[in-house]
Amino acid sequence: MGHEENGTAAAVEQALRDWLSRHAEGPLTEVHHWALHPPGKLLRPVLLLESAAAVGGAYERVMPAAVGVELVHVASLLHDDVLDDDRLRRGKPSGHARFGADAAVLAGDALMFALFEQVVECGRRGVPEAAVNRAVGLLARAGGRMARGVARELDPVPAPDVVGGYLEMVRLKTGALLSACCATGAVLGGGSPEQARALAGYGEALGVAFQIRDDLLPYGPEAGREGKPADSDLRNDRPSLPLLLAGPVARDPEKVGRLLVETGALAECTRLGRSYVERARRELEALPRGPHRAALCRTAEALAPGPWRAGGVG
Amino acid sequence: MGHEENGTAAAVEQALRDWLSRHAEGPLTEVHHWALHPPGKLLRPVLLLESAAAVGGAYERVMPAAVGVELVHVASLLHDDVLDDDRLRRGKPSGHARFGADAAVLAGDALMFALFEQVVECGRRGVPEAAVNRAVGLLARAGGRMARGVARELDPVPAPDVVGGYLEMVRLKTGALLSACCATGAVLGGGSPEQARALAGYGEALGVAFQIRDDLLPYGPEAGREGKPADSDLRNDRPSLPLLLAGPVARDPEKVGRLLVETGALAECTRLGRSYVERARRELEALPRGPHRAALCRTAEALAPGPWRAGGVG
Repeated sequence: MGHEENGTAAAVEQALRDWLSRHAEGPLTEVHHWALHPPGKLLRPVLLLESAAAVGGAYERVMPAAVGVELVHVASLLHDDVLDDDRLRRGKPSGHARFGADAAVLAGDALMFALFEQVVECGRRGVPEAAVNRAVGLLARAGGRMARGVARELDPVPAPDVVGGYLEMVRLKTGALLSACCATGAVLGGGSPEQARALAGYGEALGVAFQIRDDLLPYGPEAGREGKPADSDLRNDRPSLPLLLAGPVARDPEKVGRLLVETGALAECTRLGRSYVERARRELEALPRGPHRAALCRTAEALAPGPWRAGGVG
Repeated sequence: MGHEENGTAAAVEQALRDWLSRHAEGPLTEVHHWALHPPGKLLRPVLLLESAAAVGGAYERVMPAAVGVELVHVASLLHDDVLDDDRLRRGKPSGHARFGADAAVLAGDALMFALFEQVVECGRRGVPEAAVNRAVGLLARAGGRMARGVARELDPVPAPDVVGGYLEMVRLKTGALLSACCATGAVLGGGSPEQARALAGYGEALGVAFQIRDDLLPYGPEAGREGKPADSDLRNDRPSLPLLLAGPVARDPEKVGRLLVETGALAECTRLGRSYVERARRELEALPRGPHRAALCRTAEALAPGPWRAGGVG
């Protein structure tokens, strides 16, 4: 991320700390503090803020919603770690490992509800009621799609079109929320319906690119760095794209890396990831040029597997 | 419930069937169908509808929100059964027993988000957007309180004031959502702030009375009828009011019934339950007399442990 994005992320980090201090009592506080602090990369809130700014909105008015989308993202991580029995998250014990499954489920539930308190808060900062209303609908729909995407991942439907099934799953699991973050930014920021549609398309493509990059992580130079064990996908029988493309030959943890190269699975995965980055960049052409569009463009490019040569959008 | 309430419940049942048929595809459909059908007593949606009608609102306009509060209630049951490892719910295997913990957690998540899609839908039926947003805020706050109440129940804080701690826990766990249902009905139905406050107070008192009655069920004539094993509270070390009032003597499943009578715990529990029913009835005095106020009053009276002699409100 560039200099401006770091500033935006720092503002979100402060707003998250404020949220924690306003909710500093009660039985789930410890779990929330554990899961929210130190924060992750804050991709979702930054996307919401940059989307709002790209259509002419003010950060300050939409900041509560930006905090909300990070809360709901962390909620999904808390629940995911229970479902996968992953014991590590962001390089430390997961909420589930630290506080138990019960506390992790309930802390996640509370954060899912908190999203909507946060969105409504934007109305008190001058966002029109109709826009708040529309944002609530967008985010509620995305949350349902996210849960369905995780369910599809845990219980894949056998289909002749393996890649198509994977793409549908990640569109639900990751694309829906990123898309809603961007569209929510546009709606709360006062953008036009076309701008909201373009940003929704950008966010969905970004989500697919993000997930493909995440699937490639265990096999790239950054393996293990983000706190996820390299064999987690294999161990959980998770349908990650490289494993799906390589087919049933790649079931042996010792040989999987070599087989993914030999079958061409990594190359194909890289090609697909880059095509979604390109798709995300193209959606941005519907927005006025400026620093916020440029920031969104850089966010997409940063998700491209392999080196990226910047094109005409920015 | 009287004749009119049965008609209201039947309308909710139809609206729930419509919701299910509009969501009849995707990976969580089977779990949702299992958990929602056949429906329970539909207390929360009926309270929302009667509250709206009691302040002059139309059922039709607020029906989507009524469906929403049942969805979120069922979500909490799905999650509760995972946390308690309860295998029976409403006389059949729980969602968790039937589909596994993963599917139950995710199906619950999806229903929590669906609540807010449903509330927004009221805006398309003529409810003003400001009222919709206020309802979103009320229900979001209540959802967070509900999760914190369940967490407090699972991990009680030792306190000198055992009954006070219990009441705080059930106000969060059960009172918050019932209170928000009634207040949401008032807000979406166009009621005044005082009416919304009175109905919020009514709903909270009702929630406490409801929970006390639920705690008494395993020891009354209806024991086992609602599908909950009589020893579930004892087995789960759940702080039910009769057990708390009786103290540590009542740990033996064989003798617990006799001890609860001998220590006076059941009598004290009954007295407390009735005092909350009375409190709920008194809040209704802020509403205009009529069939909907009368229906709300009967709902409160039906929760009184032991026989109830009707007073002046109705």
